[in-house]
Amino acid sequence: MRVLGIDPGSRITGYGIIEKIGNRLVHVDNGAIHTDSHREFALRLHKIYEGLSRVIEEYRPDAMAVEQVFLAHNAQSALKLGQARGAAIVAGVSAGLPVSEYTAMQVKQAVVGYGHARKEQVQQMVKSLLNLPEIAQADASDALAVAVCHANSAVMKSVLRSIR
Amino acid sequence: MRVLGIDPGSRITGYGIIEKIGNRLVHVDNGAIHTDSHREFALRLHKIYEGLSRVIEEYRPDAMAVEQVFLAHNAQSALKLGQARGAAIVAGVSAGLPVSEYTAMQVKQAVVGYGHARKEQVQQMVKSLLNLPEIAQADASDALAVAVCHANSAVMKSVLRSIR
Repeated sequence: MRVLGIDPGSRITGYGIIEKIGNRLVHVDNGAIHTDSHREFALRLHKIYEGLSRVIEEYRPDAMAVEQVFLAHNAQSALKLGQARGAAIVAGVSAGLPVSEYTAMQVKQAVVGYGHARKEQVQQMVKSLLNLPEIAQADASDALAVAVCHANSAVMKSVLRSIR
Repeated sequence: MRVLGIDPGSRITGYGIIEKIGNRLVHVDNGAIHTDSHREFALRLHKIYEGLSRVIEEYRPDAMAVEQVFLAHNAQSALKLGQARGAAIVAGVSAGLPVSEYTAMQVKQAVVGYGHARKEQVQQMVKSLLNLPEIAQADASDALAVAVCHANSAVMKSVLRSIR
């Protein structure tokens, strides 16, 4: 199973692709889509949509995973983030991918084994779980973390199904 | 010039299409895309994207107009609204439409001639400007209002260009 994790943002949208082979998690690629803050907002949203659509076309993941957001500094920044998130999620659903959302706590639990882990611990764990040569750029690392979370919970779900 | 106005929302996204013929505004169609609140949020966003893409394909507008949002009850509702807005705007930009944003005050000024007009005054004015048989459903009426605003400002801009 190949999973695309994303960490949407109006300035930087991180993405990470991993593959679950047996019990092993293999890193496929990660990166970020940067949008130019001087450009019209609608065009920036489109860049996120188009950039992710291209990533999906290239790597053909089986599922998309994204972290749920509860915190936002204020309504205006929540609105901006929401728009980026909407553009990103639509790229996934348009390509026929199931989209799963996980809370930050679920992601931390899945990656570090501890729901209150610090950001640096998550980044370090993503690096060692996926045998990365170095810690990935922050947004890409967050995207890989939610992909790991999805890959592991999907296995959990299928294990639970098989023992029922 | 044909303008598609939209009023995005996570539950109801209103749309309205008008045509500017000479100095006359002609109503073409209006309606709303309803999303089922029991469905997964990603699928609801996709319904907005797909619904508007279909409207664009059918009516081939030259431009999309959307009201800017500054108010939101709280960060959580702003995030939801933002996601719906992102999905809607991406539908426009994907179809190659220029997307313009107008403040609520600009819309009211353009439709009623008074930036602090009440919602009912705007709806009534949209009805009479476009010769509608009755007041359109609230979200569709808001969408028509921003389309009217765009049609009129676009004319203004081209007049300004021509007298320079």
